[in-house]
Amino acid sequence: MKNPPIQIHEVSPRDGLQNEQTIVSTQTKLALIARLVAAGVRDIEVTSFVRPSWIPQLSDASELVARLPQVEGVRYWGLVPNRVGLERALSAGLDAVATFLSASETHNRKNLNRTQRESLHALRGVIGEAVDSGAIVRAYISTVFGCPYEGPVAIEQTVRIACALYEAGAKTVVLSDTVGLGHPDQVGEIVAAVCDNGVPLEAIALHMHDTRGTAVANVVAGLKVGVTTFDGAIAGVGGCPYAPGAAGNAATEDLVQVLHAMGHPTGIDLDAACEVGGFLADALGRELPGRMHGVHQAHQDRQESCSA
Amino acid sequence: MKNPPIQIHEVSPRDGLQNEQTIVSTQTKLALIARLVAAGVRDIEVTSFVRPSWIPQLSDASELVARLPQVEGVRYWGLVPNRVGLERALSAGLDAVATFLSASETHNRKNLNRTQRESLHALRGVIGEAVDSGAIVRAYISTVFGCPYEGPVAIEQTVRIACALYEAGAKTVVLSDTVGLGHPDQVGEIVAAVCDNGVPLEAIALHMHDTRGTAVANVVAGLKVGVTTFDGAIAGVGGCPYAPGAAGNAATEDLVQVLHAMGHPTGIDLDAACEVGGFLADALGRELPGRMHGVHQAHQDRQESCSA
Repeated sequence: MKNPPIQIHEVSPRDGLQNEQTIVSTQTKLALIARLVAAGVRDIEVTSFVRPSWIPQLSDASELVARLPQVEGVRYWGLVPNRVGLERALSAGLDAVATFLSASETHNRKNLNRTQRESLHALRGVIGEAVDSGAIVRAYISTVFGCPYEGPVAIEQTVRIACALYEAGAKTVVLSDTVGLGHPDQVGEIVAAVCDNGVPLEAIALHMHDTRGTAVANVVAGLKVGVTTFDGAIAGVGGCPYAPGAAGNAATEDLVQVLHAMGHPTGIDLDAACEVGGFLADALGRELPGRMHGVHQAHQDRQESCSA
Repeated sequence: MKNPPIQIHEVSPRDGLQNEQTIVSTQTKLALIARLVAAGVRDIEVTSFVRPSWIPQLSDASELVARLPQVEGVRYWGLVPNRVGLERALSAGLDAVATFLSASETHNRKNLNRTQRESLHALRGVIGEAVDSGAIVRAYISTVFGCPYEGPVAIEQTVRIACALYEAGAKTVVLSDTVGLGHPDQVGEIVAAVCDNGVPLEAIALHMHDTRGTAVANVVAGLKVGVTTFDGAIAGVGGCPYAPGAAGNAATEDLVQVLHAMGHPTGIDLDAACEVGGFLADALGRELPGRMHGVHQAHQDRQESCSA
């Protein structure tokens, strides 16, 4: 098949909202998630089971999960930092979880307060326990494309960690461009290196932040080397709390637009996704960095036209 | 040479400011242009010689050109719609001009109030006269990647017009994605078709709007098929007057960032370009859609860090 269908893993309720200053109510999160489901999104990362005091935006994790609409074919994911988080996620009723560690040592220590080696050892246990409980696991590797502390990250680091996580039982390894330092050539190179070392292409996802405006270009580069799972956040919500004004994840509706234009089905209704973007911008009371939800809104009002 | 140097053609003073509601003073435009030159930009489209009542933002064209700083190696361009515009541009002292028409008939009629055939006939004369006067010409073809009125535009239209403009004496033919409908595969396909029909690769430039978030991806696609001239506007200024909130041209500093990351020199200092972006956002009193100028600003203030 020339153009394989693409899976979009929607992270707005988790990676998006955890980076927003506004704390969104459980009710509004449920409304967001219901709209995402109605738009055709099938994988949604709804929250994080870190210690509630760490990320007040997501402290309603268990309550939120308890109230999620159960829809055939829709999978809800929870981020878990460790075994305690995993147990909370499973007790809340999730059967899909995401773990994380960093490809760079310094980022791992700052973000997780332990060494990479300690993280990897602990995650082997968490992933094993999750799989034994019948859950599926995606394993994020942060800072693959560059670290805000260390700069460039050796591909060998990523390859070693990716293989370890895959062997530990993760269904998907998520190569993450945490602060948007990646470029298209790098995407091809890193995906190839990970594949060559035993992680199958269908087990690789890309999680590209648009901090420097390269998220769509990097997703297209991933598409060209055969990746079929990409993370997105409606309207590009998120950004980095340490860089005000910075863009967040690749905007889901912007990805859907370009993927459809290039002939790759996503199962997502573009207009409906754009409307979710408008809904979220309203809920947060600010302009969001994605492009398509604004284009959609303008189209509702008047005919588009420009001079050059 | 593996990574050829890239020419950035800066259009912010013309294509950017003509689409802004705020009318910027001649003094501020000169400050913008001086900063662009200091950042290493070598080709700057400074204004348009359309009838002043059409675009009040650019009604100071002749005065602006008279006051431009003369710097070795820097080329200033003026947009000219017709012979009268060309004569005004030449009298004002420019020796580099840009003409325009549309690949789609409806957009051409709405934008230029004449048929495509009439436009092409007139432009042959304008280009010939410019060349005879010792000026160099770049010829924009609008709506190459899609028309807001007609939708998809046949590649044959673009090829026919591109060849005619090149044969008429245009040094560069600018394939323009006027409302940001293009996608990376299309870029490769259209560039190849134009080349195959006799326009050399070095005579092709890409002018990609970021309306739908695809400008950087489309530039990278152009780079991969050998294009070496790309238009940009500092901070992505511009947008479309009929689609409020829409992004403008590819942001110059975002292009410079990804081109440098991929090993292509541009001659532009990235930090300096980011500061021009901040200057322009201040001058316009609004947030601008490009990413890098905000990243640069945040870096000035604090260390960048994010959690996933």
